[in-house]
Amino acid sequence: MGMNPKQVLILGGGFAGVYTARYLEKLLRPEEASITLINRENYWVYQPMLPEVISGSIGLTNVVSPIRRLCPRSNLIMREVEDIDLKRRMVTISPGFRPRQLQLNYDHLVIALGNVTNFHGMPGLMENAMPFRTLADAIVLRNHLIHVLEEADVEEDPEPRRQLLTFVVGGGGFSGVEVMAELNDFVRSVKGNYLRLRNQPHRCVIVQAGDRILPEMSETLANFAQRILRKRGVDIILNDRLKAATSERAILQSGAEIPCKTLISTVPSALPPVIQRLDCIKERGKLLVNIRLELKDYEGMVWALGDCASIRTPAGAMVPPTAQHAVREAATVAVNIAATIRGGRPAVFRSESFGTLGSLGHGAAVAQICGVKLSGFLAWLLWRCIYLMKMPGLNRKVRIAADWLLHLLFPPELAQTKVAFESGIRNQHFEPGDIIFHEGDRGDCVYVIEEGECDVLCERKGSEELVATLHRGEYFGEMALLSDRARNATIRARRAMNVLIIPRADFDKLRQSVPAFGDVFSALAQRRMVAK
Amino acid sequence: MGMNPKQVLILGGGFAGVYTARYLEKLLRPEEASITLINRENYWVYQPMLPEVISGSIGLTNVVSPIRRLCPRSNLIMREVEDIDLKRRMVTISPGFRPRQLQLNYDHLVIALGNVTNFHGMPGLMENAMPFRTLADAIVLRNHLIHVLEEADVEEDPEPRRQLLTFVVGGGGFSGVEVMAELNDFVRSVKGNYLRLRNQPHRCVIVQAGDRILPEMSETLANFAQRILRKRGVDIILNDRLKAATSERAILQSGAEIPCKTLISTVPSALPPVIQRLDCIKERGKLLVNIRLELKDYEGMVWALGDCASIRTPAGAMVPPTAQHAVREAATVAVNIAATIRGGRPAVFRSESFGTLGSLGHGAAVAQICGVKLSGFLAWLLWRCIYLMKMPGLNRKVRIAADWLLHLLFPPELAQTKVAFESGIRNQHFEPGDIIFHEGDRGDCVYVIEEGECDVLCERKGSEELVATLHRGEYFGEMALLSDRARNATIRARRAMNVLIIPRADFDKLRQSVPAFGDVFSALAQRRMVAK
Repeated sequence: MGMNPKQVLILGGGFAGVYTARYLEKLLRPEEASITLINRENYWVYQPMLPEVISGSIGLTNVVSPIRRLCPRSNLIMREVEDIDLKRRMVTISPGFRPRQLQLNYDHLVIALGNVTNFHGMPGLMENAMPFRTLADAIVLRNHLIHVLEEADVEEDPEPRRQLLTFVVGGGGFSGVEVMAELNDFVRSVKGNYLRLRNQPHRCVIVQAGDRILPEMSETLANFAQRILRKRGVDIILNDRLKAATSERAILQSGAEIPCKTLISTVPSALPPVIQRLDCIKERGKLLVNIRLELKDYEGMVWALGDCASIRTPAGAMVPPTAQHAVREAATVAVNIAATIRGGRPAVFRSESFGTLGSLGHGAAVAQICGVKLSGFLAWLLWRCIYLMKMPGLNRKVRIAADWLLHLLFPPELAQTKVAFESGIRNQHFEPGDIIFHEGDRGDCVYVIEEGECDVLCERKGSEELVATLHRGEYFGEMALLSDRARNATIRARRAMNVLIIPRADFDKLRQSVPAFGDVFSALAQRRMVAK
Repeated sequence: MGMNPKQVLILGGGFAGVYTARYLEKLLRPEEASITLINRENYWVYQPMLPEVISGSIGLTNVVSPIRRLCPRSNLIMREVEDIDLKRRMVTISPGFRPRQLQLNYDHLVIALGNVTNFHGMPGLMENAMPFRTLADAIVLRNHLIHVLEEADVEEDPEPRRQLLTFVVGGGGFSGVEVMAELNDFVRSVKGNYLRLRNQPHRCVIVQAGDRILPEMSETLANFAQRILRKRGVDIILNDRLKAATSERAILQSGAEIPCKTLISTVPSALPPVIQRLDCIKERGKLLVNIRLELKDYEGMVWALGDCASIRTPAGAMVPPTAQHAVREAATVAVNIAATIRGGRPAVFRSESFGTLGSLGHGAAVAQICGVKLSGFLAWLLWRCIYLMKMPGLNRKVRIAADWLLHLLFPPELAQTKVAFESGIRNQHFEPGDIIFHEGDRGDCVYVIEEGECDVLCERKGSEELVATLHRGEYFGEMALLSDRARNATIRARRAMNVLIIPRADFDKLRQSVPAFGDVFSALAQRRMVAK
């Protein structure tokens, strides 16, 4: 102590990580501990308000708070955690501008890395379902919504227009319900600005695995929420779940298909790979901690909390992974680290839930607080007051209050803040019968079949003729790019397919720079030309 | 007339295009004309305030205004203009979700496509200089600034840290000066939040080709601006210009080099390719119009205005390409289209400049209005009042005023709104002597030499040994990716090089899907391994 402050390293900048740093800054003096926090972003996301980014009722940057201002005494490193070595007490983090990893030693480690989205075993979800966790996710979704509305306005054909105006959310928990409520409000309020969409209906669908939405709440409140959402035009499909997706539709377990261009998934989640690789005692994949939130075998050195830890109350009940509990866990961890550094009584984690609140958008919410159930406008006011109060810092409180006020007075924002069009080499999934492209379409990319089969069809004398069937490892689409003409055939999936898409810009660059790559495709085009 | 409204097509959604639509909506009834506007974005950018996005003194979406709200009676199509066929009176626009172009016929056409950034003949500028025209540019720059500050805070080495804290703007006109003023204000005010940067100096440099900045203004005002900027720590380099750039530095005509990670270029510009391809009479590339702003040979059918048109006053003087003039030109075009449709006297364009205003950030500006010159705080107040007044719509006015107020009370935003890391196959430029990578670095991409030469160097017995020289068409960097080890050599450019960079993710996908592509690199790695 004294001259040599202890190195405290916190991994993760969610509720758990940021609050641990905040409590530690209060408990320990700079000469006692040097605190470092590692997070992918330089901001902390105020999850409860994140859905409001969609409708723009809160400004884009107001639902987040810069970690440097929340934890002014902590060193923030805006990088990814790549490896944790518990034995050597060392954490490896990803490179920055220079391609060198950084290695940090610690005296005390706090693991609060949360969880990640995981679409394993759900074909096409990775490529087509949008997650909703970070500010980036919210901005991407908002820009995507504006994009589909713009395209729907141009579209003359009623079938694709209906598809563009269909919005599907997988998961009927808090997150799914709040996202859908905001999305529905947003689309309803801006549709009037689109001359041709004014009188077009749009469709919102929530798909929920259980037999009711909001399993986090009592049945009466969930039923109330269900009624409100249905009244506002949201379809709720129960006892079903997302199974697969293509760029054109969502496919459910029951076999039902919903043609749509917007699919959001708030489930399922998995532990971050760095935690999966960690060699220590776990419970259902999560880090097992004791009642002082210390990692087994690393007591007094490593703590884990939040969504990546398996925490039980002294009575043995599982602690649910919510923000409320994460903040309490952070307090326990901070007290225990301080106790370890300067000696003192360690604290035992006690979970107490104050209650749950869920917004249904547009002046309605459900709340269950200290045993009292509330719904409707009053619950909504409470929702706003409580979450505004809980947002740390006067700056953010004032900005959010100002945003809410302006949102009452003026229509929502409609400008797309899109920075770049999606491009680059990417994967895509097709289900049997799907058309990959039509004869006559403009050729904008080349495809490689990674799995599955497809048919090549040509229009001859007014009828469709099967020209060939392509299999795994074969290419198609090169002809239009090499000759700069329209597609000369229609490609239809025969079995479920996974393909690699190489867009024109990348294809041209690769062809020029790696002749062997180009040769594969020109030889193929030549053979196919002759065969025709 | 009556039943069949005339089709008026407006290309471009800048000041010129949007104001033409607005005036036309006032002059013509819906049964007289159906107005369609085509623009890449669904918003109009209020250019004078765009630099304020950098410091966040105005919310990200408040410097733009949704075109659908500005022109509620016009059809907006959010696509790119790909071709204009004057003979067949048809405009082709880019595809949306479906890969089919859209073709639109018109009775009257308004061309207001502005100009585009053009770095032709300036090696490395395309890859490393950031433009500053659109909201996307401003957001990208803001996120980049936060990124370099975050990295500078982590960097231990003083040399790279100095480079990360150097900011260069090419072009000392209004745009360059305003961008630099805002950038400097932003960096200065947030640096305090970075524990290790607090006491570090940062460097701002403006490079201007002429012998003073702000050539749009009188010399006294330009000198005043120069003094203010210098007092605030901005270096101004005169009589020099950007010649080339790498990812590590800016290179000037004079041979001077400035190590930096941030290079913004507000010059030079060229006409959009679709205008370059247009077969009609032009003057220095711009569309030549008469005093009624009609395109030569297409009088009564096609009008051109704004930055893509060559416009002269009745007296023969060139009209400068500013927002003020664009708005006046729009009024003339709208009157003339109305006159053509319902008969009446056409209008002649008369240019009258009200004055010029330039912000120097943080309570200082220069103004030259109706012959009166102003500078300092008064000019800055005037700047804010005039531009706030000129912003159309109460909604935006109130939001901007609220933003300014909050900006006075609270420190600027610091959250990065970055949506995705730059990735994908891309080009890069290196100058002789540049290190492409160091032995021991992590291998994260493969390189193809498109032009130039480089040396392969290995550390042997403590000294650097030249192992090979690689030329155009050769590859390097594959070994680290194939073996998943660190770089086993240092690569240094011998001559100026242009390379294609294939990042690991794309490289792995291509190798798996196109075996011939992978074979090229594994054969090469094998040969090199043996030779070693």
